[in-house]
Formats: sequence, structure tokens, C-alpha cells
Amino acid sequence: MLKLTFLVGLMIFAISSMYFYFTGKNKNGLNSAFLVSFVTLISYVLMWQGKIVTVTEAGQPIFWTRWLFYTFSCTLLMVEIAHLKGIQGGDLVQLLYLTAIVMFTGFLAARDLTVTRWVHFVISSVAYVLLVIKVLSAKTAASQWVNSYVFFGWTVFPIVFFLAPTGLGLIGVAVANLLYLVLDIYTKIVFSIQLARTSASTFPA
Amino acid sequence: MLKLTFLVGLMIFAISSMYFYFTGKNKNGLNSAFLVSFVTLISYVLMWQGKIVTVTEAGQPIFWTRWLFYTFSCTLLMVEIAHLKGIQGGDLVQLLYLTAIVMFTGFLAARDLTVTRWVHFVISSVAYVLLVIKVLSAKTAASQWVNSYVFFGWTVFPIVFFLAPTGLGLIGVAVANLLYLVLDIYTKIVFSIQLARTSASTFPA
Amino acid sequence: MLKLTFLVGLMIFAISSMYFYFTGKNKNGLNSAFLVSFVTLISYVLMWQGKIVTVTEAGQPIFWTRWLFYTFSCTLLMVEIAHLKGIQGGDLVQLLYLTAIVMFTGFLAARDLTVTRWVHFVISSVAYVLLVIKVLSAKTAASQWVNSYVFFGWTVFPIVFFLAPTGLGLIGVAVANLLYLVLDIYTKIVFSIQLARTSASTFPA
Repeated sequence: MLKLTFLVGLMIFAISSMYFYFTGKNKNGLNSAFLVSFVTLISYVLMWQGKIVTVTEAGQPIFWTRWLFYTFSCTLLMVEIAHLKGIQGGDLVQLLYLTAIVMFTGFLAARDLTVTRWVHFVISSVAYVLLVIKVLSAKTAASQWVNSYVFFGWTVFPIVFFLAPTGLGLIGVAVANLLYLVLDIYTKIVFSIQLARTSASTFPA
Repeated sequence: MLKLTFLVGLMIFAISSMYFYFTGKNKNGLNSAFLVSFVTLISYVLMWQGKIVTVTEAGQPIFWTRWLFYTFSCTLLMVEIAHLKGIQGGDLVQLLYLTAIVMFTGFLAARDLTVTRWVHFVISSVAYVLLVIKVLSAKTAASQWVNSYVFFGWTVFPIVFFLAPTGLGLIGVAVANLLYLVLDIYTKIVFSIQLARTSASTFPA
Repeated sequence: MLKLTFLVGLMIFAISSMYFYFTGKNKNGLNSAFLVSFVTLISYVLMWQGKIVTVTEAGQPIFWTRWLFYTFSCTLLMVEIAHLKGIQGGDLVQLLYLTAIVMFTGFLAARDLTVTRWVHFVISSVAYVLLVIKVLSAKTAASQWVNSYVFFGWTVFPIVFFLAPTGLGLIGVAVANLLYLVLDIYTKIVFSIQLARTSASTFPA
């Protein structure tokens, strides 16, 4: 089940990498949609292999490498979100640092089986709330769909983390990683397609 | 004692993170003072937990994660120092690379219990001297206090490293980490407050 | 033999670091040639020490740290190549991401002794081909020597990887690391000297 989830994820992000490589060429030369899918593909290969995990007392494997890859893919996504929201310069750097901190402390919390993981979880959550405040406070015409769309997707990640063996353990590893896959598809593929459409309609030739 | 030092550090940097988050908002949107304190907070949480260490033959734990976090916090500090000194463009990138190399080779030297750690220490020191030369050679009106202030604080780090179990072992782990805490407060909190005051007086409304 | 190769590499890159530090000062302040040699020096110190390796079933050590250091040195080289080719902005960021992905998946493939390493190898190769396409498609007057010069050097790396114990194991670890040393000298020292000459003739005072 777990192995299958990762294999499906691996194939989906291999296909989306190819799709975005050929369709996402316009813009200023930085094809974020492709790079995000490509980085996520590498992450799924590692999880599919299943060698780099921490095993909980209950015998559940935790795939903490996921959060290190998010450090790279989500900062790229944030560059696109910031662009859409008109955030740039020092504000953008601040936002990218916060995104990296959220994901890196997520990695620290996921790797950690002791009660200290909750300290990492709290710090990660604080950084996430500061990030959301910063993005929401930038009001542009485009903000409507981005706010509802992105933050629904992004906010479910810590909720899954909280319920999974990384947190309370109310749901199992298989369900958690299936949910993460759905979220990955939503925040990295569906978002990129929606973004391409918006850009096309906002900036017509 | 060691645990207490890290707990105090953890609390101080939690407070300074909050303080700088609310007071450091002006500027160009990049709140370096806050991010530096926040990254240092995460570093202290990890050291307070005390799981990721190398133990010397004498049974002394070496908290080498500290130096990896400095890679991020000190490049941020260097951005501020460079700004004050009017260093930008390629010179700034060079300076950030040197800072990262100093801290990363510091990490390699700290993790290493063999005699090879002195090779890492020498490389780190060379990079540090090149960094100091580059900063000192940029002469501006503001350079007076930055030179004396910052480099006193920064240069004590390798001295503590040299005397601690990471080097000759003339001082113990508890004393070394207490000294590092004082230096962290000096270079990351006191410096940021002084920087905010200078900026306020240099660029009046 | 292996130890000697690394020691020679260590000394060569120590000398080239010094050489480029003093001769590469002009430009815009970013002395890439020096930083590339300095990062490679650190990489050779680690390999010379020989503690951080994976050992194959046949008892051959694989020095995978090399690929992590390439992530930093080769992105710096790519900045210089892109500058020469007139690639900038989003295209440059894309190119740096691709370079980092090539080296990081190279690290994943090198660390991995299972058959999955071929998946990492394929992903790394795909990223490399995309990188080559991007560089070759930028046609400038300077492209003549860069294309033939650089890509001969760069492309031999995956071939050595493929033949070495990281791949098919047709050549031994000693030969592979000697070849890597030759390639390192070619792509990082000879290239930098050639680059300095070209810059001098292209932009006369």
C-alpha cells in the first residue's frame, strides 16, 4: 500500500515534470512548475525505495526526507505566489526564509520520536503563521483565488502531520502518505496549471 | 549545567525573536534581526535536546549542529554588515560564500575527533582571515563601531573553539558552551539592537 | 594509491586557491575561480581523510561527499559559463537549479548500493541533458571554446561514474578517483585560467 502510494506519486510527478517542461517554457526563463515537479519526483524515488526512515516504537516508518525536499520545492512555489501577490525585494527574501524554516523544522519534528518533536512542531507552526500573515497582508486583484486555493492546500499538511505517527498517531502511515500525495498533487500540479491559466488571462499577448 | 545553558539560550532567543519581530519591521521588508534570532532559537532547541552530538574520548559531548546553523544566521548577519559597509554585488556574494565556508568547515572540524580536524580548522581560519580583510578594507563612516564591535565578537568564537574539547581541550564543554551563549547574545542580539539604533540615527525620517 | 591521489588533489587545489586568490581579483568582486578551488580543496581534505564513505560488497569505498561539494563548486562555475553565454535572470536561476539537481542526484546515486541507484542516475542524466541543451541553445561569439571545452570535461564525469564501482564496476576505485582528479583539474583550474585569458582579451582596459 505504502510502496504503491510512492510508486504512483513517482509516476505522476515524472509525467507532470515532462508536461511542465514542454508547456511551461514561456515566462522569464525560470520554469518553476517543472522544477517543483522534478524535485518532488526525486523525493518520491527516495521514499519509494524506503531506506531513509525513522521507525516509531509502534513500528511505523516515518519518511522525513519529504520535508527536506519541500524546503526546495516550496521556496520555488513561494517565488511564484509572491510574484502573483506583488511581493518582492526584502519582503520576498523574508518569505523564502520563513518557508525554508517551516519545512526544515518540519524535518526536525518528523525525524524526532521524543516529546521534543512538539517544540519543533510549535516553532514550525509559528513560522507558518507568520508566513501566512505576510502573504495575506499583500492584497492584490489576484489574491482571491491564491488565498483560498493555496492556503487550503498548504494548511492541511500540518494537520496530517499532527494526526499521523509524526504527531498523535491517530491515523496510520499508509493513510498519512496517501493524504500527502493528494496534497502534493493539489499544491504542486493543480496549482501550477491554475497559475499558468491565470498568467495567460492576466497578461494576454 | 550544560542543559541549563542551552535552556537559558533557548528562552533568550525565543524572547529576542519576538522582540525583533515586532520592533524590526521597518527597513526593506527583510527583518534579519528576527530571522537570526529565530534560526538561533532552533539551534538551541536541538542542543538542549542533546541528541545530535559527537562524544570525545574524554567523554565530552561536542554540539557540532551549532556550526551548521551559523551558516545560515551568520550569512544573514553578514548581509547587514555588508549593507552598513557599502559592500554589494559580486563583493557581497564573495563575502557570503566566505562566511558560509568558515562555518561549514567549522562544522567539519567540530564533528571530527581525529588530528585531521586541525586541517579543517586551518582552512576555516584562512577563510575567516580573508573575510575580515574584505570587510575591513571597505572603509565607510559607519565602519568605526562595526569593526571593533563585530570582530571582537566574531573572533572570540574560534578562540573558544581552539581552547574547548574541539581543539586543545583546555576548557571543558560546559564553560565553552556558556562562552558561546554569551557570544551569541553579543553578536546576534546586542549587535542587532545597536544596528537598529545606528540605522535610526543615520537615516532620520 | 587512493590516499596519494587525494593528497595530490589536496595540494593542487591548495596551490590553485592561492594562485586564483591573488590573480583573480579584478572583475566585479566575485572571485569564482578562487572559491571553486577552495571548495574543492575542502572536498579533497574530506576524501583524503577517507572516513565518510560507503563500502560496496566488493569492498570498494565510494567517496560520495564529492558530489555534495560539486553542488556548490559547479553552480559557481555555471555562473561564469552563463555570464560568458549571456544567460541571465530566470534562465540563469533555472540553470543553477538544474546544475544543483544533477550533482545532488549524483550524490544520491553514489551513496546507494542497490539497483535504485540507476533511477537516481537516470534522473541526474536527464537534468544534465536539459542543462546542456539550455547552455548550447544560447549562442554567442564566446560559445565556441566553452561548448567544446567545458562539455567535454563535464560529460566525462557521468561516464567515469558509469564505469566505476558506483555504476558497472568495470574500473576500480583508484582509477576512477584518479580520473576524477584529472577532470577536476581540467574543469576547475584549466577552465578558470582559460576564462581569465578570454575575459582579458574580450574586455580590454
